[in-house]
Amino acid sequence: MSAEVVPLPRKRPTLDPMLALTAPGMNSVNAVILDRMQSEIPLIPALAGHLISGGGKRLRPMLTLAGAELVGYTGNRHHKLAAAVEFIHTATLLHDDVVDGSDLRRGKAAANIIFGNPATVLVGDYLFSRAFELMTEDGSLKVLKILSGASAIIAEGEVDQLTAQRQIETSEERYLNIIGAKTAALFAAASRISAVVAECDDAQERALDEYGRNLGVAFQLVDDAIDYDSEAAEMGKDQGDDFREGKMTLPVILAYSRGTEAERKFWKAAISGTQSDDAALQEAIALIAKYDGVETTRERAQHFAHRAIDAISIFPDSTARQAMAEAAHFAVARGY
Amino acid sequence: MSAEVVPLPRKRPTLDPMLALTAPGMNSVNAVILDRMQSEIPLIPALAGHLISGGGKRLRPMLTLAGAELVGYTGNRHHKLAAAVEFIHTATLLHDDVVDGSDLRRGKAAANIIFGNPATVLVGDYLFSRAFELMTEDGSLKVLKILSGASAIIAEGEVDQLTAQRQIETSEERYLNIIGAKTAALFAAASRISAVVAECDDAQERALDEYGRNLGVAFQLVDDAIDYDSEAAEMGKDQGDDFREGKMTLPVILAYSRGTEAERKFWKAAISGTQSDDAALQEAIALIAKYDGVETTRERAQHFAHRAIDAISIFPDSTARQAMAEAAHFAVARGY
Repeated sequence: MSAEVVPLPRKRPTLDPMLALTAPGMNSVNAVILDRMQSEIPLIPALAGHLISGGGKRLRPMLTLAGAELVGYTGNRHHKLAAAVEFIHTATLLHDDVVDGSDLRRGKAAANIIFGNPATVLVGDYLFSRAFELMTEDGSLKVLKILSGASAIIAEGEVDQLTAQRQIETSEERYLNIIGAKTAALFAAASRISAVVAECDDAQERALDEYGRNLGVAFQLVDDAIDYDSEAAEMGKDQGDDFREGKMTLPVILAYSRGTEAERKFWKAAISGTQSDDAALQEAIALIAKYDGVETTRERAQHFAHRAIDAISIFPDSTARQAMAEAAHFAVARGY
Repeated sequence: MSAEVVPLPRKRPTLDPMLALTAPGMNSVNAVILDRMQSEIPLIPALAGHLISGGGKRLRPMLTLAGAELVGYTGNRHHKLAAAVEFIHTATLLHDDVVDGSDLRRGKAAANIIFGNPATVLVGDYLFSRAFELMTEDGSLKVLKILSGASAIIAEGEVDQLTAQRQIETSEERYLNIIGAKTAALFAAASRISAVVAECDDAQERALDEYGRNLGVAFQLVDDAIDYDSEAAEMGKDQGDDFREGKMTLPVILAYSRGTEAERKFWKAAISGTQSDDAALQEAIALIAKYDGVETTRERAQHFAHRAIDAISIFPDSTARQAMAEAAHFAVARGY
């Protein structure tokens, strides 16, 4: 990692201001989450709780709360809606674990390993249904439209990612479309609905959507970079997961397009799965380093982080805006 | 099957009056289904279409249309909502195929066999999201509440069924709770929402809910009976699926509770999976026949079919009411 390429603020950016901003609201959101993941069927809270209490950052509901602070919303409707957002996210994580056949999630055994694929799929469905119950209780058709639309787009993005898997010819454009759908759509929706409950004007609603969307892309880019960054282990996920699954992410796309003919042969074998053992992973990490794949991916993330920050510049300066801006810097810098 | 135990109407009951009643509306519903299962990601309509065009009876949307006829609703809001109901059902079927590891569905290769578990899970999620988009477009929070609630209950029922799997001590009571959740809740909701769009009074809404709920229980009971009825092959599903999966259904519960100690030993081994080969399946079918397990299950179904018919007796007699009553008789008699 070169400080020239990705100039960090003097003080390393953290999520702390965002955490401080949203802490009181997050207590309410967490109470809703705990209450609504219950069921008379004991396996449901056991399985849901494994993931929900598994140390996720709860970034998405945090975006809803931060947006509400930014626009000066003083009600509490957004607590239920933020919980709904987290349920949608949790449902997709559970289904992802089944789809990817993951062993680890956030450094712990994935739910499907402990509880099996069948229960993991069904509890995902349960949480998804609960999310829509929460939204329906709130009663905003606009919020329902935003979040049902985002859910459909997430599923489309996941299917598209599946189609691109093991396809070495995947372009950066297509990759950006995939992460825009599978990750950024929910960030955008989570952020946007704060403007909806606060009855902001269209421009403010769009601004919060764009903040979330660009932040989501930045986060996913850096997530994908970390999987090939030997210095990073922050994510608690098995490093090399993406590689073994033949998932096409930007560091690979860059190293492939910048590589020699011989190197491209290696990538074809690796991504197709014919050569993806630990030695191949080390070779992949070395080739990505050779072509600055991790740094370039962070540069791209920086671009989206700046767009996120500019999107909310229409709002007056405030503690909330500063916290949200630092969260965008953090998205780029984390894992260093 | 003994005609004494389950007295059938002189003419064998069919679904034909129900099909005739709902045919015009079903054309509109099918158009919505085809339109809304599309996506720019080609795998989505390919996979969804495999199941959707796979010859299902589309009973659930038919209930919404029949209910609308019964109460004299003349609008067209229920077409989108009936499509949403079918999408929820299709999503659960796709996820069920993954959960059960099914090879066949409606006599064809199951989606997961052709497209793999990952895509099958994700396309289920897509259809589920689309269902909520359709409901949101309609804009009735009451319908959203009914269908999001039903979806959560379906997932709970499926998890409960999973928990009861391979548990020979499962009671009839628990079994009825499971099918009430996993099957009847959506039948009830599909039927009920016709009264909601038609702005019926509470009693009429409840009547349609009860019609659907009891019909759903009757259908599921007979479905479960057919899996052990050597004379029946109407369902196009692998006979013996429930047996091999150690699923606890009423014919097994009855044969176990009515059986000798030696027979109970057999059932324990069979349901636990230690002895569930084809010879064991034949033995199971013979034991269920010995204790009238299939006939008794149909008798139970008959009880629920009668309750369904009585529930709609508050409405004046009409072609719609007669068609719905015959559908309830059909639920009991089919597979003969």
